[in-house]
Amino acid sequence: MVRNIIVIGSGAAGMTAASTAKRSDPDASVLVFTKDEYVAYSPCAIPWAIEGKIKWEDIVMHDPSFYKKERGIDVYVKTTVTAIDGVNKAVVANGETYRYDSLIIATGGIVSVPPVDGTNLEGVFTVKTIKDGKLVQTAARDSKTVVIVGAGIIGLEMSLAFRRMGKRVIIVEVMSQVMSRIVDDDMADLIQKHLEGDGIEFIMETSILAVRGIERVEAVVTTGGEYLCDMVVFATGVRADLSVPGLLGLDVGQLKAVVVAPTMQPYKMGCMVSDVFVAGDVVQCQSAVMKIPVMSQLGSTAVRQGIVAGMNAAGCNKVIGPVVSPWVSVIGSLHVAGSGFSRDIALRNGIKTVDGKAVGFTCARYCSDKKKIVVKIIADVTSHKIIGAQIVSGEDVTGRINWLASAIMNGMTVEDFIANSETAYCPLVSTVRDVVILAANELCSRF
Amino acid sequence: MVRNIIVIGSGAAGMTAASTAKRSDPDASVLVFTKDEYVAYSPCAIPWAIEGKIKWEDIVMHDPSFYKKERGIDVYVKTTVTAIDGVNKAVVANGETYRYDSLIIATGGIVSVPPVDGTNLEGVFTVKTIKDGKLVQTAARDSKTVVIVGAGIIGLEMSLAFRRMGKRVIIVEVMSQVMSRIVDDDMADLIQKHLEGDGIEFIMETSILAVRGIERVEAVVTTGGEYLCDMVVFATGVRADLSVPGLLGLDVGQLKAVVVAPTMQPYKMGCMVSDVFVAGDVVQCQSAVMKIPVMSQLGSTAVRQGIVAGMNAAGCNKVIGPVVSPWVSVIGSLHVAGSGFSRDIALRNGIKTVDGKAVGFTCARYCSDKKKIVVKIIADVTSHKIIGAQIVSGEDVTGRINWLASAIMNGMTVEDFIANSETAYCPLVSTVRDVVILAANELCSRF
Repeated sequence: MVRNIIVIGSGAAGMTAASTAKRSDPDASVLVFTKDEYVAYSPCAIPWAIEGKIKWEDIVMHDPSFYKKERGIDVYVKTTVTAIDGVNKAVVANGETYRYDSLIIATGGIVSVPPVDGTNLEGVFTVKTIKDGKLVQTAARDSKTVVIVGAGIIGLEMSLAFRRMGKRVIIVEVMSQVMSRIVDDDMADLIQKHLEGDGIEFIMETSILAVRGIERVEAVVTTGGEYLCDMVVFATGVRADLSVPGLLGLDVGQLKAVVVAPTMQPYKMGCMVSDVFVAGDVVQCQSAVMKIPVMSQLGSTAVRQGIVAGMNAAGCNKVIGPVVSPWVSVIGSLHVAGSGFSRDIALRNGIKTVDGKAVGFTCARYCSDKKKIVVKIIADVTSHKIIGAQIVSGEDVTGRINWLASAIMNGMTVEDFIANSETAYCPLVSTVRDVVILAANELCSRF
Repeated sequence: MVRNIIVIGSGAAGMTAASTAKRSDPDASVLVFTKDEYVAYSPCAIPWAIEGKIKWEDIVMHDPSFYKKERGIDVYVKTTVTAIDGVNKAVVANGETYRYDSLIIATGGIVSVPPVDGTNLEGVFTVKTIKDGKLVQTAARDSKTVVIVGAGIIGLEMSLAFRRMGKRVIIVEVMSQVMSRIVDDDMADLIQKHLEGDGIEFIMETSILAVRGIERVEAVVTTGGEYLCDMVVFATGVRADLSVPGLLGLDVGQLKAVVVAPTMQPYKMGCMVSDVFVAGDVVQCQSAVMKIPVMSQLGSTAVRQGIVAGMNAAGCNKVIGPVVSPWVSVIGSLHVAGSGFSRDIALRNGIKTVDGKAVGFTCARYCSDKKKIVVKIIADVTSHKIIGAQIVSGEDVTGRINWLASAIMNGMTVEDFIANSETAYCPLVSTVRDVVILAANELCSRF
């Protein structure tokens, strides 16, 4: 008997799950339903596509005909799943009923737009899909002043895209620092100053009260006054899109995302649902730092989860571990990265921290193209375990954050990390003692 | 009583030990004796200084007056230690006797020039010190064809320096591949092809029989015939300089380098010498992959050892662990790195290996400035532990090799490495699945 596998969602988790399922069981029938027009694209690249640095067609990796022809997977775009019958194992889409043996839900997240007046005016956008991105790009052509609501990573990436398109850019942020969920205030300060140097204006500790205008946006009204603008982008964070999991009545956790077992199987009234698998931004993860749920919301996490969901949907029995969610971004000429807990997140979870920070260069001080690099490492004051790391540099952060993420994941103490870390040296591409080690040494001296 | 600490040698190990000792015991008297004219410089930078990419004065970090003024350390340059009395704890230099409580020996290595005729002719060089480098730079001005003997990392770095100075460059190598001690043949091939693309000529599997000439070099005579040239550089590897350890009769190991305890204390007739510490290229290290001695011969290792030697000379009780010796170099537009055992070294030590290799990019395939990156991981077929890694890329290898070095050091299996590695993704600086993970996956599939 052919195994019927249905995937709902065509992002990183969904398409990875579909391809993995088909590879694990080549005889299976694999169908993908997606509301989106495009599949298998890189949403992380949208800010750069908007400014024109990357072409739209380039960020779409494959189209449905590729999946049909090369992988034997049927992809139905612009298709909404309207009902799921969990008892008879069937999905309704386009008015037809499709039976499944395994169902994979990877419907991602939606932008949390605050419930204020005027968000439906012309000129107000969110940026999540290619369709969103293209609308933003077109609108930006005739726009002079853009207000971005939210100084998270997407807001900052978007601010630079607009700035490079020659717009005046104002960021309104409710917190006192940028990227407050993932970096500490001192590191955030480096990033904000860099963006201010590029002419981006920050209105901090300010809430949005309304978007004002007649048909078109004319201003945003905030707790700090009105800001005239002809375009508004809400970059106010993403929450799980629970519409499809809701069709099955799946259990939702404290972070308002689907709770899954390490096999990516969800629960319903506390019982595991064995023929359903949920992956990507729609689920809450387990932190590797301590036993609490966290939202990872990273393409890399979605791919890792999609692999496990796809294999298990095809009859395997794989598990995925807890996360430390390393991330990296390019913000102007800064390369920024992090993993694990920030100091604030740690404190909020009752962990007392010590941190060590070091400033160095990415190569020998006498190399003319050297870039400054700041590394911060955060440890639990009791266990001495590394629980978080943040980097702001001009280059070369990816390998370093993956290395630190591995230390956090393995529960290493700072002392063990130093004792077991040798670092490679060539004056053109590193320093004799890597700044990561200098930060760890600084941390040790502060216990 | 003031503690008298004497350091012999002014390279990375010696100067780090001197500074660390003084910092650990600020009341100590710290003297450094060195044959060299310069102290505290970056020998790794010499090839680039020769070609003029880096200034000579820039690679000298500090001069003796800095050490006197800023650190309270007396440095005697151009000074040979002629005798050491281990019983009465005294060193003879410049005809004077200096008493020590702790003696640190960090006299480094010397280039192993093969015992053939003609190596004393004018136009024949080794490259170890700044003095050597400046002589080579001057000689190269009037030279057209340079033969480099040895296709190790120094030979290759030097070949490009000469090539960029417009010389014809011929490398004569006894082995069938470049960098045979540290990379596998397939990775070596990538490097050699790159250099051949730059016009460098390789004469492989060929031994040098003599340097021919009257006063000045005219040709090298090899097992493959004569090669006319007006300059020869021996880059035939470095061995421990045992002249100073010999004054004390310290025990030498199977790699013809000083045997030390984890405290950096040497042995004499099998008994540990408690008031002497030896660090840097003059000692043999313990491998972290298996219990065998290895030569690390890296500036980074010298610094790590210098810290331990310096602290212990000042009365502390620190130990240093075994090594995986991560290294990195820039060879033309290739960034090359490695750590742990190569396949050959493993086999020679009785380890059966499996390896996995993956080719990818340093950023998303649609980024115009993406660079190709090849990662190879080597594991023990029995234990599944990662024992070696090699990278050839266009950029971004330092963080990756430090990360892999950490996995080797921690004795991780490939499976654990994959399970515990999350990687950061941003299309501009990484891929959604890092090529390191792809190589590990490939390896896993081959057990």
